Amino acid sequence: MQPGDPPIEEPKFQVRRLQVSDKSKGFIELLQQLTVCDSVSDKDFEDRFQEISSLGDHHVICVIEDKCSGKIIATGSVFIEHKFLRNCGKVGHIEDVVVDTNTRGMQLGKKVIVFLMDHACSMGCYKVILDCSLENKAFYEKCGFKQKEIQMVKYFV
Amino acid sequence: MQPGDPPIEEPKFQVRRLQVSDKSKGFIELLQQLTVCDSVSDKDFEDRFQEISSLGDHHVICVIEDKCSGKIIATGSVFIEHKFLRNCGKVGHIEDVVVDTNTRGMQLGKKVIVFLMDHACSMGCYKVILDCSLENKAFYEKCGFKQKEIQMVKYFV
Repeated sequence: MQPGDPPIEEPKFQVRRLQVSDKSKGFIELLQQLTVCDSVSDKDFEDRFQEISSLGDHHVICVIEDKCSGKIIATGSVFIEHKFLRNCGKVGHIEDVVVDTNTRGMQLGKKVIVFLMDHACSMGCYKVILDCSLENKAFYEKCGFKQKEIQMVKYFV
Repeated sequence: MQPGDPPIEEPKFQVRRLQVSDKSKGFIELLQQLTVCDSVSDKDFEDRFQEISSLGDHHVICVIEDKCSGKIIATGSVFIEHKFLRNCGKVGHIEDVVVDTNTRGMQLGKKVIVFLMDHACSMGCYKVILDCSLENKAFYEKCGFKQKEIQMVKYFV
């Protein structure tokens, strides 16, 4: 910077990979807005963080931190599946996308999806897929997705 | 065995994990019945096999070999996703299920799904999920699955 230049403003919303310190910034509480997620001990969080981190670029969790409040306000993950079909192709699976109820309508969900799509593309995936409720279909269409199949589930517990 | 016992018959259909030698038993040709899958060189096959094998029990490909013909006649895969939600739960993702057109109606698809479900359950998953076309919904319902969400896809190529 030169004297007289306007100060460079730090962006209010920081889009980045999950860090182990994000547990204290409300990451688990954010996931609780999505589905069943009891509180997690620091030890369990660190163990799971290490398990996922050991996969490197093959399992990436994106978060958005509000630099004003210091809170994690949006997240989503993608993992890369290696296949034999499609000429030994790769597919990105997007999971667990959630935006804090207090910060919706600010395009934060789209920022998360773009981050995850860019990552999958850079890893050489030929497609990314995700499952969502019918009510979220329009959001993903705005992100460039099209409906294809149906999701089936079997619970063990 | 005691003298006089009837001979133990080897089962005609062997359900097991993929082996690197299965390329010569028609594994790729079987996948070609499912979707786009050009022929794969031995080197590419071995490289991808090693990549998937390095994940151990976290990415398992099931095959059924017809011991009479020596051909792979059914396959399906499951990989285990580690999550933070659901109390640091795990989810099994079933992919690329196909049964040879000549051997359909013999419950081979169900054998593959049961193998994959049993594996996911033994790995501590709280659920298994998969995406399928509407026309295959009834088959998966017979395997104990229920329809839940919709699948969205974005192709990069």
